[in-house]
Amino acid sequence: MNEQQICQVVEQVISQTKTKAMNLKLACALISKIENKAESMGIAVVIAVSDKAARPVAVHCMDGAYIASYDIAVNKAYTSAGLKMSTAKLAGLAQPGQELYGIQHTNQGRIVIFGGGEVLEDKGKIVGALGVSGGTLEQDTELAAYGKEIFEEVLRCL
Amino acid sequence: MNEQQICQVVEQVISQTKTKAMNLKLACALISKIENKAESMGIAVVIAVSDKAARPVAVHCMDGAYIASYDIAVNKAYTSAGLKMSTAKLAGLAQPGQELYGIQHTNQGRIVIFGGGEVLEDKGKIVGALGVSGGTLEQDTELAAYGKEIFEEVLRCL
Amino acid sequence: MNEQQICQVVEQVISQTKTKAMNLKLACALISKIENKAESMGIAVVIAVSDKAARPVAVHCMDGAYIASYDIAVNKAYTSAGLKMSTAKLAGLAQPGQELYGIQHTNQGRIVIFGGGEVLEDKGKIVGALGVSGGTLEQDTELAAYGKEIFEEVLRCL
Amino acid sequence: MNEQQICQVVEQVISQTKTKAMNLKLACALISKIENKAESMGIAVVIAVSDKAARPVAVHCMDGAYIASYDIAVNKAYTSAGLKMSTAKLAGLAQPGQELYGIQHTNQGRIVIFGGGEVLEDKGKIVGALGVSGGTLEQDTELAAYGKEIFEEVLRCL
Repeated sequence: MNEQQICQVVEQVISQTKTKAMNLKLACALISKIENKAESMGIAVVIAVSDKAARPVAVHCMDGAYIASYDIAVNKAYTSAGLKMSTAKLAGLAQPGQELYGIQHTNQGRIVIFGGGEVLEDKGKIVGALGVSGGTLEQDTELAAYGKEIFEEVLRCL
Repeated sequence: MNEQQICQVVEQVISQTKTKAMNLKLACALISKIENKAESMGIAVVIAVSDKAARPVAVHCMDGAYIASYDIAVNKAYTSAGLKMSTAKLAGLAQPGQELYGIQHTNQGRIVIFGGGEVLEDKGKIVGALGVSGGTLEQDTELAAYGKEIFEEVLRCL
Repeated sequence: MNEQQICQVVEQVISQTKTKAMNLKLACALISKIENKAESMGIAVVIAVSDKAARPVAVHCMDGAYIASYDIAVNKAYTSAGLKMSTAKLAGLAQPGQELYGIQHTNQGRIVIFGGGEVLEDKGKIVGALGVSGGTLEQDTELAAYGKEIFEEVLRCL
Repeated sequence: MNEQQICQVVEQVISQTKTKAMNLKLACALISKIENKAESMGIAVVIAVSDKAARPVAVHCMDGAYIASYDIAVNKAYTSAGLKMSTAKLAGLAQPGQELYGIQHTNQGRIVIFGGGEVLEDKGKIVGALGVSGGTLEQDTELAAYGKEIFEEVLRCL
């Protein structure tokens, strides 16, 4: 191998092993896909994407979405990034009598305990989170799951 | 004129006099222009656009922007929509000894009293507001003023 | 007995009956033991120790712990010191229909009603509290109970 | 060079160019140095270290430190990580009549506008922040500057 070939292999290895960090372009590309799906479902939602430190990167409010959905979507992303799980899973744990009952009060009102929040992963590592609010619980949960599912594909296309 | 012709003229007149409402597409188009300008200035900012009810419509955090700028940008948009003035103008009024001294304490920490927030107008009517945070005060103020200036043009191009 | 001998005996008696106050060295020694145990369990947790006035003395976030766990661990220590009981015990009392139902709303979001918080005692007297968050409820509860159990031993070794 | 040798060189190069992320061991090693210096100055302070996302990693309250210093130290670290500057520099900008006057109200009370907060850098890149509170302003500022100064050395020694 000559120097140039080594460089190429090294670059390849690095790019293959490195997890992508969340960024604005990626967040917007993902949001755009979810907006399209929400439109096809005939609903208007707020979509928030955060980085893995639970800091918001982009928030879009579709025309006519609930005013209250802004905080809910942002907080769903915070919750999923902050606890490394979907808010749908947390919902089960936070019911009266269940093990995390009361967790919605521990973080200054930022923990959401119903579906619509998901972590976003690249090769099994969390790189951010997603929050969707504005439809029924089923619709928010479906849209967030859809976003999680297509995330790596969106990431690879950028 | 027959009935159909009258209808057409009326529709035209109404569409010309009607103020456009803020919407997600418009907010994103404006944000995109400001992002380009911020990039050309070599800075990373957070840009928030609200509707005229001071409710956020879209927020974008450019890669590497200050973490603290998210709240500041959103609050600058809130302040401008909420008080129908730029935060640069409010800055003068809120200094010790000036008439609105203390206003930064009145709205649960959402009033920002330095530049970077502007109202967005269509034909002289407020349709929303803009908040920019992440550069120096001068840069934020310049970017917000730029956004205000190009807003109607952006609106007409959609 | 001469004066010097009397002094020595008195000092001994006082030191044996005196409750140790929480301090930074003690808090860190306890945290360190719990970190070791968490590591051996393969989990990353946040550990907070407060004094008997429910004021934090030390907080450590193990690498990779949940972001949301910081507030939760600090609040578990607050809750246990503030109510002189484990948060596991409080969990039972705070369920719907139980006598302290609603207590999670009384202290600005600082009351945690699931396991992982314990009081720390020296000779039966409360000298502080401990909060652990980041594992499952069972793991947090186990780690906090472990911390409570070894506390006096840690205290004697300093 | 054979494949194995190339791999070793590549790993070395990567580890040399990579910026260290903040972690608990590093935060505690830095805090320990600052505690020693505070002790030598005869004062008790609270020391907080955050990662670059402004999330706390470790907080230590020296025995006898002000109760109020816990929030102040944590918030100084938040402010420096959140705005990528020392709180001493921000102090100048936030005075009445200066450009960021009023910034202390924009982020839910987490912006501190007096000295004692510093960013922590590795090879010119921010990897976290430090907050010190409990002495006079001069002492807090000195201790934070000291922490910033020795940070890379502490990092290299781990």
